[in-house]
Amino acid sequence: MKVAILAATGSVGQRFVQLLEGHPWFEVSVLAASERSVGKKYSEACHWLLDTPMPDKVKDIVVVDCKPENMGGAGFVFSCLPGELAGPVEEEMAKAGYPVISKASGNRLKEDVPLIVSEVNSEHLGLIEVQRKKYGRKGFISTDPNCSTAPLVMCLKPLMKYGIKRVHVATMQALSGAGYLGVASMDAVGNVVPYIGGEEEKIETEALKMLGTLKGGKVENAPIVVSASCNRVPVIDGHTESVFVEFAQDVSVEQILKEWEAFEGEPQKLKLPSAHKAIVYRTEPNRPQPRLDVMEGKGMSTVVGRLRKDGPNRIKFTCLSHNTIRGAAGNGILHAELLKAKGVLG
Amino acid sequence: MKVAILAATGSVGQRFVQLLEGHPWFEVSVLAASERSVGKKYSEACHWLLDTPMPDKVKDIVVVDCKPENMGGAGFVFSCLPGELAGPVEEEMAKAGYPVISKASGNRLKEDVPLIVSEVNSEHLGLIEVQRKKYGRKGFISTDPNCSTAPLVMCLKPLMKYGIKRVHVATMQALSGAGYLGVASMDAVGNVVPYIGGEEEKIETEALKMLGTLKGGKVENAPIVVSASCNRVPVIDGHTESVFVEFAQDVSVEQILKEWEAFEGEPQKLKLPSAHKAIVYRTEPNRPQPRLDVMEGKGMSTVVGRLRKDGPNRIKFTCLSHNTIRGAAGNGILHAELLKAKGVLG
Amino acid sequence: MKVAILAATGSVGQRFVQLLEGHPWFEVSVLAASERSVGKKYSEACHWLLDTPMPDKVKDIVVVDCKPENMGGAGFVFSCLPGELAGPVEEEMAKAGYPVISKASGNRLKEDVPLIVSEVNSEHLGLIEVQRKKYGRKGFISTDPNCSTAPLVMCLKPLMKYGIKRVHVATMQALSGAGYLGVASMDAVGNVVPYIGGEEEKIETEALKMLGTLKGGKVENAPIVVSASCNRVPVIDGHTESVFVEFAQDVSVEQILKEWEAFEGEPQKLKLPSAHKAIVYRTEPNRPQPRLDVMEGKGMSTVVGRLRKDGPNRIKFTCLSHNTIRGAAGNGILHAELLKAKGVLG
Amino acid sequence: MKVAILAATGSVGQRFVQLLEGHPWFEVSVLAASERSVGKKYSEACHWLLDTPMPDKVKDIVVVDCKPENMGGAGFVFSCLPGELAGPVEEEMAKAGYPVISKASGNRLKEDVPLIVSEVNSEHLGLIEVQRKKYGRKGFISTDPNCSTAPLVMCLKPLMKYGIKRVHVATMQALSGAGYLGVASMDAVGNVVPYIGGEEEKIETEALKMLGTLKGGKVENAPIVVSASCNRVPVIDGHTESVFVEFAQDVSVEQILKEWEAFEGEPQKLKLPSAHKAIVYRTEPNRPQPRLDVMEGKGMSTVVGRLRKDGPNRIKFTCLSHNTIRGAAGNGILHAELLKAKGVLG
Repeated sequence: MKVAILAATGSVGQRFVQLLEGHPWFEVSVLAASERSVGKKYSEACHWLLDTPMPDKVKDIVVVDCKPENMGGAGFVFSCLPGELAGPVEEEMAKAGYPVISKASGNRLKEDVPLIVSEVNSEHLGLIEVQRKKYGRKGFISTDPNCSTAPLVMCLKPLMKYGIKRVHVATMQALSGAGYLGVASMDAVGNVVPYIGGEEEKIETEALKMLGTLKGGKVENAPIVVSASCNRVPVIDGHTESVFVEFAQDVSVEQILKEWEAFEGEPQKLKLPSAHKAIVYRTEPNRPQPRLDVMEGKGMSTVVGRLRKDGPNRIKFTCLSHNTIRGAAGNGILHAELLKAKGVLG
Repeated sequence: MKVAILAATGSVGQRFVQLLEGHPWFEVSVLAASERSVGKKYSEACHWLLDTPMPDKVKDIVVVDCKPENMGGAGFVFSCLPGELAGPVEEEMAKAGYPVISKASGNRLKEDVPLIVSEVNSEHLGLIEVQRKKYGRKGFISTDPNCSTAPLVMCLKPLMKYGIKRVHVATMQALSGAGYLGVASMDAVGNVVPYIGGEEEKIETEALKMLGTLKGGKVENAPIVVSASCNRVPVIDGHTESVFVEFAQDVSVEQILKEWEAFEGEPQKLKLPSAHKAIVYRTEPNRPQPRLDVMEGKGMSTVVGRLRKDGPNRIKFTCLSHNTIRGAAGNGILHAELLKAKGVLG
Repeated sequence: MKVAILAATGSVGQRFVQLLEGHPWFEVSVLAASERSVGKKYSEACHWLLDTPMPDKVKDIVVVDCKPENMGGAGFVFSCLPGELAGPVEEEMAKAGYPVISKASGNRLKEDVPLIVSEVNSEHLGLIEVQRKKYGRKGFISTDPNCSTAPLVMCLKPLMKYGIKRVHVATMQALSGAGYLGVASMDAVGNVVPYIGGEEEKIETEALKMLGTLKGGKVENAPIVVSASCNRVPVIDGHTESVFVEFAQDVSVEQILKEWEAFEGEPQKLKLPSAHKAIVYRTEPNRPQPRLDVMEGKGMSTVVGRLRKDGPNRIKFTCLSHNTIRGAAGNGILHAELLKAKGVLG
Repeated sequence: MKVAILAATGSVGQRFVQLLEGHPWFEVSVLAASERSVGKKYSEACHWLLDTPMPDKVKDIVVVDCKPENMGGAGFVFSCLPGELAGPVEEEMAKAGYPVISKASGNRLKEDVPLIVSEVNSEHLGLIEVQRKKYGRKGFISTDPNCSTAPLVMCLKPLMKYGIKRVHVATMQALSGAGYLGVASMDAVGNVVPYIGGEEEKIETEALKMLGTLKGGKVENAPIVVSASCNRVPVIDGHTESVFVEFAQDVSVEQILKEWEAFEGEPQKLKLPSAHKAIVYRTEPNRPQPRLDVMEGKGMSTVVGRLRKDGPNRIKFTCLSHNTIRGAAGNGILHAELLKAKGVLG
């Protein structure tokens, strides 16, 4: 199945191109970007920033404008468009009949748009049918969450049965999450910046939707409170999070470890090409660490450690996830594989 | 007044030497260290690691053993001894009549030993009289807290009147806190280590004592719960902390800002030489940052930012403090100045 | 004497403002910048990036346009304008009668413009008289070198008597040299970038002029060859350089150490306010290091170490210098002090 | 063929274990280490520090003492012993009939011991026959060079025909080269250390031997002078080197690029499993960079860039190589493959 990528020259776009090299089901056939790049070969338009070489197959693809008529025979479209642009462009694509799997934040909280971590809430894909009916079209928009929300909901999902009431999370986020020019080196070397614009709000709202329940064509938010404090640290890839959870009841460390160990979602059951163990728990006291653990499960696993009781009804732990793989391109590809496996892509 | 420093060649000992250069009241006269250094000049025994030159006055001081008979005419003793050693050596010094101001953790939680951040709980110095009576000696031990506890209690103290119930704190701590050989560079560069041995326990217990009340010759712990998750980040100096606070009642951002702005302790009232503004609030959204703010108030101020409501009865904020100045040597010197000003050192 | 600063909101401009706080001779009275900042108070126009607070005295100065009529009663002008803009603006200032001390690269190699490290080639200030006569005006332009050239010529100057033939230098330059937005954090953390645009050419030409001889109103370049290879490393402040020197004759390590120890220029002889020991030699095998040595002599000294023979007629060594103090604002201020002391500023 | 690794728990030993996973010819069967580890399973004895998981096959191997009687049926032995220990232990192994491929520095310069980068001087393996005859035994010692020497000789070898006279090289070396505990984080973060003990001497002597000629059972050193200045920079993996070369004749950039492009050695001709393109030239002005290029050719290629003329008869360039792969374990494995392919291992 042929695939188009919007904003293909950016840092998330590059990850899509990298991860789709040699993919058993999908083949990159259309690379779209902004005017500056249109008409150039991808190898010329793109300032490649990954530590593996640009795949030969894409080098000569001529970059096109982000318009439906340029999508060729693509079976669907990955969108990595920046927030402001994403809305109208993705809407146009959907109108023109294309399934759009979007990393953009603009549509994530729309009532009829799924917001998906495939292991966590694949049943929310039911919203696609809602969209199709509502607008009378084959195309649709389905979204991926913010990179720091993904590992959090992965850890919380298997614990929902114990009645999560409140979550405090302090993040230590990698530089790549801000894009190549996102953080100045003077702010990064030997420093911590205790602020990432819009990030806390995303975690605090997106988590509730993803942990919510699809009922009558709508997602009802999970009745929990999430409070985030986000920090940028001098790490290239890998968001680390210190998490504190309050439950409605007491729950032991052993119960939680069992839940995490047993946790798998549709991707694992369907043995999707990009499915890896969802949660990998490290027992060493000083793990997970970005340098050592970020590539666990080819960057798709959430690595967890330091689970400990925090008084009655409470626990705390640390989790880590690759922000441009699990938190972006890898999540999108798994999302697409799931749609394909379930026959939603046609 | 002449001053002795125990473990003077270590990283905290060096800070004491640096900060005492040109001090108006105190003069370094005795430098004690382990056997390896005894008999050498300080300039030869000490692998100086600070970015200002070793003061000329101390270069030729011959390092002595940590024994009372070597303390010369010192009016009191700063101890930076490591935990295991500190107990017996400090006890000997006190027995021999020396006031000991100790950075070591071993004695901090003892019933009759003050644990002091001078702005926060100077009234706890009343325990010194308890000690003197109990043991019938002039010498005593008074202690400084862990480097990550100091900024936390500074921020919380002026808010105690609103009924603090629970505090969650995730720390991002500097490398210097672990000493010169404490963290391997392979673990530090581009990485986060989500664990610091013993640190969380220290924060969770010391804060309660310092925020507690001296009654009938004893400190009654504050009736609050503190839960910490400690991380090491690649920063040289400056611990940053994401703090979440739950109160018994609602409290506005404006009220808290007023409390912090107005907050001063005995050091400020007495205009002690090392007293600076206790809490400096930065209104920029992305502050405090270690690189820019750690030297605020010559490293003695706690820099706070990002105060925001976190639902009813709750707030969150970020604070920063210099871990080897406010969190160690600077806190000890202010502690000594306070004792001197109150006539406790004689 | 009142002083104006052009491009006062940039990173070098900020250093000027910082270093001139409390200066015994000079007082910042005019702050000029680009249109975006004009009309705003300096405290509002400037994104202050230094680790000491913005001086109170400048906070309320209203930023003006870089035009001669706005220079008020300034006795001279410091220019930190970017290369392209510097030429015409500085020319206008000189025409209007202002002495301009410029950090910009555009005028450095002009025949009648001095390029000054005050300890190295103060006699080149004779070119000012040449300018004044040639153009019949009181105003003039005198320039400061590139930040990585300054320490190199400082080390080489006292060795010129041994007949330097060829110099190879590999630099490891700090991030602040590129300005706040100059290097992306993704390129800086855990990385080396082996290229700095235009830097090698600057070192290779500027050094020859500064080590050259003023004869008949012209500077004759020193008859040496300098070859540079420039690298960016993850250091905030401080350029480190590995230097290899070939002489026309043999010269011993002892001779060189003597020359460096004895080296002083007019600033030291005149006891100028910003004069510090020109060259500080560290005997430890692993020095100089940016973290420990960059502030030597308040950032004005060049710190040297690791001097060793490199076969007959050859030596090698390592030097370090603060790139935004000695390599920029500090050099400019010393330059101005020298002009003032010699009566050139009137 | 079964393989033993001496000092298997150290950082180079771990790389051998990692790189030998799934090797088509070799299988790790014996893991030897110091007394502390003997008797424990490898998974318990080894503090694994690589970012891929420990291979399952080695986890349960019980660590043995570094004695010949423990080498089981190993066809040969990789030694990563530290300098002081390596000499006698490797000698014992050779006496007992084992071929030893050693990363240790102690034997590198011995007259009858090959020092090998397989693409550069495979003919020096002829010394093995010299050893066998001299000592009348099947076992032998063959060595790998220092990690910063390997990329240098790779770049210089194809240029020897132009009459290299003198080489100046300034290195910027990664932290992993010093081992896990080799560099304190306080010296690494935001810093450069301009010294690595013994490193410069190794480069200056080893390069001459490797570029020398085997004649009459001896290696005659190349008649060139190499001068090194070594620096430690905050990079995890990858040594970057600024190289200046003086030739006996003029040589153009085009000629050199042709030589590098065409360069291949026996490993490439024999299509050995670990052979990759020896030299990869990057044309971008700001490459090679450790973050982006260190894994080129699975860490076995030397990545070169910035070639430019440096006056008549001179050039300069930058090269990069993975110090624990090409500079250590990978070089050793290729070395072993070459010996196997040539029938030297029996």
